[in-house]
Amino acid sequence: MSYIGRKGIHYFQKLNAANVASGLLEKGQNRVVDASLTLIRERAKLKGELVRAVGGAVASASLLGVPLGHNSSFLQGPAFAPPRIREAIWCGSTNSATEEGKELNDPRILTDVGDVPVQEIRDCGVDDDRLMNVISESVKLVMEEEPLRPLVLGGDHSISFPVVRAVSEKLGGPIDILHLDAHPDIYHAFEGNKYSHASSFARIMEGGYARRLLQVGIRSITSEGREQGKRFGVEQYEMRTFSRDRHFLENLIPVTIYINRAKKFPERETEK
Amino acid sequence: MSYIGRKGIHYFQKLNAANVASGLLEKGQNRVVDASLTLIRERAKLKGELVRAVGGAVASASLLGVPLGHNSSFLQGPAFAPPRIREAIWCGSTNSATEEGKELNDPRILTDVGDVPVQEIRDCGVDDDRLMNVISESVKLVMEEEPLRPLVLGGDHSISFPVVRAVSEKLGGPIDILHLDAHPDIYHAFEGNKYSHASSFARIMEGGYARRLLQVGIRSITSEGREQGKRFGVEQYEMRTFSRDRHFLENLIPVTIYINRAKKFPERETEK
Amino acid sequence: MSYIGRKGIHYFQKLNAANVASGLLEKGQNRVVDASLTLIRERAKLKGELVRAVGGAVASASLLGVPLGHNSSFLQGPAFAPPRIREAIWCGSTNSATEEGKELNDPRILTDVGDVPVQEIRDCGVDDDRLMNVISESVKLVMEEEPLRPLVLGGDHSISFPVVRAVSEKLGGPIDILHLDAHPDIYHAFEGNKYSHASSFARIMEGGYARRLLQVGIRSITSEGREQGKRFGVEQYEMRTFSRDRHFLENLIPVTIYINRAKKFPERETEK
Amino acid sequence: MSYIGRKGIHYFQKLNAANVASGLLEKGQNRVVDASLTLIRERAKLKGELVRAVGGAVASASLLGVPLGHNSSFLQGPAFAPPRIREAIWCGSTNSATEEGKELNDPRILTDVGDVPVQEIRDCGVDDDRLMNVISESVKLVMEEEPLRPLVLGGDHSISFPVVRAVSEKLGGPIDILHLDAHPDIYHAFEGNKYSHASSFARIMEGGYARRLLQVGIRSITSEGREQGKRFGVEQYEMRTFSRDRHFLENLIPVTIYINRAKKFPERETEK
Amino acid sequence: MSYIGRKGIHYFQKLNAANVASGLLEKGQNRVVDASLTLIRERAKLKGELVRAVGGAVASASLLGVPLGHNSSFLQGPAFAPPRIREAIWCGSTNSATEEGKELNDPRILTDVGDVPVQEIRDCGVDDDRLMNVISESVKLVMEEEPLRPLVLGGDHSISFPVVRAVSEKLGGPIDILHLDAHPDIYHAFEGNKYSHASSFARIMEGGYARRLLQVGIRSITSEGREQGKRFGVEQYEMRTFSRDRHFLENLIPVTIYINRAKKFPERETEK
Amino acid sequence: MSYIGRKGIHYFQKLNAANVASGLLEKGQNRVVDASLTLIRERAKLKGELVRAVGGAVASASLLGVPLGHNSSFLQGPAFAPPRIREAIWCGSTNSATEEGKELNDPRILTDVGDVPVQEIRDCGVDDDRLMNVISESVKLVMEEEPLRPLVLGGDHSISFPVVRAVSEKLGGPIDILHLDAHPDIYHAFEGNKYSHASSFARIMEGGYARRLLQVGIRSITSEGREQGKRFGVEQYEMRTFSRDRHFLENLIPVTIYINRAKKFPERETEK
Repeated sequence: MSYIGRKGIHYFQKLNAANVASGLLEKGQNRVVDASLTLIRERAKLKGELVRAVGGAVASASLLGVPLGHNSSFLQGPAFAPPRIREAIWCGSTNSATEEGKELNDPRILTDVGDVPVQEIRDCGVDDDRLMNVISESVKLVMEEEPLRPLVLGGDHSISFPVVRAVSEKLGGPIDILHLDAHPDIYHAFEGNKYSHASSFARIMEGGYARRLLQVGIRSITSEGREQGKRFGVEQYEMRTFSRDRHFLENLIPVTIYINRAKKFPERETEK
Repeated sequence: MSYIGRKGIHYFQKLNAANVASGLLEKGQNRVVDASLTLIRERAKLKGELVRAVGGAVASASLLGVPLGHNSSFLQGPAFAPPRIREAIWCGSTNSATEEGKELNDPRILTDVGDVPVQEIRDCGVDDDRLMNVISESVKLVMEEEPLRPLVLGGDHSISFPVVRAVSEKLGGPIDILHLDAHPDIYHAFEGNKYSHASSFARIMEGGYARRLLQVGIRSITSEGREQGKRFGVEQYEMRTFSRDRHFLENLIPVTIYINRAKKFPERETEK
Repeated sequence: MSYIGRKGIHYFQKLNAANVASGLLEKGQNRVVDASLTLIRERAKLKGELVRAVGGAVASASLLGVPLGHNSSFLQGPAFAPPRIREAIWCGSTNSATEEGKELNDPRILTDVGDVPVQEIRDCGVDDDRLMNVISESVKLVMEEEPLRPLVLGGDHSISFPVVRAVSEKLGGPIDILHLDAHPDIYHAFEGNKYSHASSFARIMEGGYARRLLQVGIRSITSEGREQGKRFGVEQYEMRTFSRDRHFLENLIPVTIYINRAKKFPERETEK
Repeated sequence: MSYIGRKGIHYFQKLNAANVASGLLEKGQNRVVDASLTLIRERAKLKGELVRAVGGAVASASLLGVPLGHNSSFLQGPAFAPPRIREAIWCGSTNSATEEGKELNDPRILTDVGDVPVQEIRDCGVDDDRLMNVISESVKLVMEEEPLRPLVLGGDHSISFPVVRAVSEKLGGPIDILHLDAHPDIYHAFEGNKYSHASSFARIMEGGYARRLLQVGIRSITSEGREQGKRFGVEQYEMRTFSRDRHFLENLIPVTIYINRAKKFPERETEK
Repeated sequence: MSYIGRKGIHYFQKLNAANVASGLLEKGQNRVVDASLTLIRERAKLKGELVRAVGGAVASASLLGVPLGHNSSFLQGPAFAPPRIREAIWCGSTNSATEEGKELNDPRILTDVGDVPVQEIRDCGVDDDRLMNVISESVKLVMEEEPLRPLVLGGDHSISFPVVRAVSEKLGGPIDILHLDAHPDIYHAFEGNKYSHASSFARIMEGGYARRLLQVGIRSITSEGREQGKRFGVEQYEMRTFSRDRHFLENLIPVTIYINRAKKFPERETEK
Repeated sequence: MSYIGRKGIHYFQKLNAANVASGLLEKGQNRVVDASLTLIRERAKLKGELVRAVGGAVASASLLGVPLGHNSSFLQGPAFAPPRIREAIWCGSTNSATEEGKELNDPRILTDVGDVPVQEIRDCGVDDDRLMNVISESVKLVMEEEPLRPLVLGGDHSISFPVVRAVSEKLGGPIDILHLDAHPDIYHAFEGNKYSHASSFARIMEGGYARRLLQVGIRSITSEGREQGKRFGVEQYEMRTFSRDRHFLENLIPVTIYINRAKKFPERETEK
């Protein structure tokens, strides 16, 4: 058994050692992946049934945690984030009323389908190609349960790729994305990793999952970042010219509207 | 829907509201619990197959995380502990050789079957009676895959009950327990909670899962703690008399031996 | 002796046990409360005499600490705050000149009459009804020493009630209050506690101590918060409509003016 | 008004400015000191009455806080310590049973008479000569209420002097002291301060309040420390020779015994 | 040998003890100072040669660390700052592109000549008069290597004096300074220290090193600060009048322009 | 210019770019290294002269800091350690008397020659082969000034190699080393780095700088660690057998004695 990576919570080994039959590992991984997706499907299904039984909901934001940190080139902490974000949401220091006057403890407003078991799947020797598929499938499973809308809790920025891919495939076409970030995360590959948190938007654009990509708030972009932006037709708005672009950017029609409209009006036009 | 508890990571609601059909919740919970156990079974099975394929292992400690904190009467942090313990095990500041010279990255020494999805199960409205059963079942699933031996990562001390119950039921009889703690954790119920972290050994003794219970290191015990100890025939060794009891305690035959012997020699005698 | 509460710094017991004569506790509490108020009176008197002897002061802000934390429904830290606030005021990292050019070490600008011995009074078994009276009396003792003006250092938000009550009673009528907070703190009772930090403005309005209550900055308000607001005629300004209300709010005549005018011109009109 | 010191929580000024009548400050200080001692007397009296009413107590340790930090030559944190020590005693992470099996929430075991208002007294311009007297008087007030025994919570080490002085004067003669510390704290004065935390035992020995002073655990002693030790006949046991002295030191009759015997048997002999 | 100061990293002693020949110390200090300056000269020279060899640079900001903390009247941490600032610049959490699109890892943009060995020089008994000269000389050594421009990393604010002195002397006349700070740092001496971090601008103005001094952002200024400001003709802009002065201040021609113009156009006029 | 490493405080570049003349960099590096060593020589010389002038010293421990962290395979913090260690030595919380009664502020006991400018030398493009030589030369420069004895402050463990090499070469033969550590640090190379903190003792043994190497306290050793130990004749004492070896290890004649004896008695025998 040889070493494939020590990053993160588990110690991962290549399990295809000489005295392990070739099919054994593959079959086991298949069963673990299937069981993982079944568990997410069942949780999403139960939450969807309940919200529909309560009735009257148009859309319920549904938390889906993706505790993945190994594609970060710096610290790995995002692997621990989803439970901490939930703890902050429900912290006893506040009540659950939002500024708009909605109650977060009403399942018609907010539901939760738990976490994708990222660490356990990796610990079974599953590689990132397949792991990214599992994340995409998990997002789709939530989207299948109307009126649940996945609100994905990262995880490092590499998960933007499988999440956007799932949304695009489920809605039936490329979507418009408003990306607020100091970096474009559009390297072809970073430190040799095509799934790096610094490469997620290269994967999204390559896959044709975005119609328009607006990157707003860029503060630190290298020449490769600019070239990739041009190559893919990305609209990059940097902070140094923000005052010039501000009026346009603040009057965009919110991207969530686009997503819904995308489903029904694939021929939609860009806003002015 | 009425409120049942805000402790911990999720906001939990009683989901049996008027407009939710009575069977809907129950069926959904059943499916989620079944899928959770299936996922643990598949991970344990894969790890067991691999260790057996590599060959030559007598026993492989197999990590099973139980991220549960709501039965603590003080802080809830243990709900976040299992991933942090794994991070410490594999931290880049050390190599993986133990003091005895074994390599932790050898699956014949250490494997990992991941976490019981405690928070998600609770978030589906499952109560503690059933949750404790899920934990017991998870421990048994690991024990079914020879040569895996569950090494359970808590979680607050309330999980000692379902873990010991599972071991006892799987081995076929009450076991001997060496319990190192400053408190006996043997209240009948603490602050009204029979599954409290301060009541786990009351549940163990009530259930008949222990033949001998040696509690060593007691520093802070109330009168109820002493009475419960007498009632259940617990051997309580306090720190204030440790120097008197030291010789006896340091010469106990290790409890792991008892566990193995318990399986084969249920008629075993106590050590002298 | 039975238990009444474990929150905070002391362990408090109901001291009316069988073998304690009924009058003993009451008389002792009376003596402790009297001595506490005498000590505050003497400190205020000395500071008032000194400022008057120095001469030339119109008003000297006079710090009065109220180290009370047990009416918070979350953390109890405010019980430790007053000494820490003083430490920050006099920290060696800064000089004592304010942005307006005044010197905080001039007693005509700032004086200090110390803390109400909240913890010790509670530890003598005094309940919150009486404790709130002691706080109100302490504020009045400071107001009796011209030109001292109490600047009260909390303590959790429950102390707003006794402080406002004292100011209103001393000035001779209801006052106008500008309340800057993300929450309205106007529950009838929170978790069964009528003196909760989340209920102080309900007590203030019930008591008729406020002519106008402007709550500005509300971000998180429940339906009970809105209903209580309507019931008491509170003017609630939420952050989500702040840009609409901004001009009005920024042009209010400062509330400190109202307080002084309230005394002399009870027939005053609201500003437009 | 001129500056006397900025250390600690308050800003202290010399209040004998030209336009302040000479007697005004002195009279005010007298009233504040009297009221402070009255408050301590009343709290001690109430606690004494209650313990005697409950009956059956031989001695109840009675907490007296002295929040004083300005005589430390390094950090001033001890001024904040007494409330933090109480918080640790009653922290919800533990129960209140001691290793010896006693219940700390039984007033026959532990009572509390609160804090000496050190900061407020200093803020009234009272100097350290008088402040030290207030501390001594406070200790005596607790000792007057049988069966209370003062357990003083510092505060920096400078308070050892007024506390030992009070005990000695109350018991009627010099006492034996077992002083466990890495430093002897016996400089004649440290950085010009005769009440420094590094000089408390010089004041104790000068005043004749100790019959024997055993300093155990010394790790860092200067030549002045050794000379002062010889001058006062102090028995200094350093860590570098601890293994040689260990048997003698571990077989001392506990100093609390001496204190009680001192009262009744002033002619007592040293232990062998 | 007598004590001169314990502040900071080293223990400094007056080394002119009776049995140390008078010239020995002075000669040794001379050699250490000379070697220190030689080392800075060589590092600056190498960096200058490299940038010139690469070619095409107009100005390369060149980091010069001055790890000095003992002239702070509060904490001494700035003595440790320069390596920490460099660590933050090169931290793996970011790339090296600036908001303006320049690459910090291009030596034509940023170079580094290391630290002045402040602590070692002080530890050789060198006093602050001479130490300030060493700092000024070090700045000049960097300025001699075109196109390097010193970007000095403090160190407490006392180093502004030797740095400004060096720039002024090197450019051949007084310079214009835009000083952004909450304090004017213009006491004649603070706590008796003429090199205090609170006195650096008094030394600059006394020495005639500034033509105009604009202090912007003042929040805390004492009467001495105002008087010194008037005495030296400083333009002090306080935060309380910032909205009034904002237009003027935001339309200043950047001070770096002044510095360059100062060299060539000493007769330059102030901007309108 | 190509990238050679981003680890640590500076950004290091290969400076041999096409348009930089080949000799320019080499000559500049030579001058910087020479100036660095000159500065250390002068500081050591001054301290040596002073101690000799004071007279009466047999040996003065002389601090030499080596702020190097880039050979650590985990965190880089040791690059910041030497100033922090000095700060702890002179911290105002303690006096300067040691447990043995010596005064650390007496230069006959403790002197300081400052830090090797490790970061600046690396930033000039000097590689580790030469850097290690600079460290060795620095140690020798201190040893040349009788009665100074270098007490080297790391820095990561990679500096043990150049330090031991210097001591051995200066004393004229291999030395005996008592190495207290949980790891043997004897990998041939770690992660491809022959100067890794995990390989320093491989370099020492290869170079023949140790006669005996006793490694005591080993807790975590891999098979390569054991093989390298055997290959070089290292005496490895593990914690798991410490109780067996304790008597022998506690009765070793201190290694500092060996060092001195090594110089004069190269034919010395091992202790029994």
